[in-house]
Amino acid sequence: MKILGIEHIGIATESIDKIAPFWKQVLKLNHTHRETVDKEGVITDIYDTGRGKVELLEKIGQESSIAKFLEKRGQGIHHLCFEVDNIEEAITELKQAKIRLVNEIPTKGAEQNLVVFIHPESTGGVLVELAQKPK
Amino acid sequence: MKILGIEHIGIATESIDKIAPFWKQVLKLNHTHRETVDKEGVITDIYDTGRGKVELLEKIGQESSIAKFLEKRGQGIHHLCFEVDNIEEAITELKQAKIRLVNEIPTKGAEQNLVVFIHPESTGGVLVELAQKPK
Repeated sequence: MKILGIEHIGIATESIDKIAPFWKQVLKLNHTHRETVDKEGVITDIYDTGRGKVELLEKIGQESSIAKFLEKRGQGIHHLCFEVDNIEEAITELKQAKIRLVNEIPTKGAEQNLVVFIHPESTGGVLVELAQKPK
Repeated sequence: MKILGIEHIGIATESIDKIAPFWKQVLKLNHTHRETVDKEGVITDIYDTGRGKVELLEKIGQESSIAKFLEKRGQGIHHLCFEVDNIEEAITELKQAKIRLVNEIPTKGAEQNLVVFIHPESTGGVLVELAQKPK
């Protein structure tokens, strides 16, 4: 697989509205948009640093992975996402290397990316997302 | 302040040697070097993704912030570092905005960068590092 760089860092937060001023007004990151990903049960507020994005993640409902993360660990960095050139090729290689995946079939994440998550068990405690941009 | 992008993601690990194969051989990230930062009590193994770096962090001794993090939270993402153009200017702005800093005087981090840490209390649970590259 070919990793093209850090796509974004996902940060679990209790309230986007409460914490957004730090990222927007103090750090002065460029806010691109806010998006709801119903399937993941999450609202995501996206900032582009020029070299990788920051995504603030707020739960919708109690069943999403963000809700469970907040309950277990509290606010903080939830996952690290890399952009890949070819997600299917990446999945094939990961399976061959016996890496544990959260999902083996890519799903549609924020910004219409095709995404797959690697289980923290295989990475040393980090939830790693791989994303292929829409063609 | 001007943020120039994500400089790196710092990942606390019990053993660099044990987990490095995932980052190096599975994800095929470009390993640049390994460096000891005595002052921080840490060995750092650095990978360049092309858009932001990954730093695996292993403790030296029991008093470092990595040792305390591992004890409290276990392995995982420890901090998020942004590159800034001018660290002194950034510190002045952060203090004016009443943002809580871990250190108010920049210290020398990995790769001879001048760095300052923002306390998770002010960011929504994320330890944020700002780094200015050596001129």
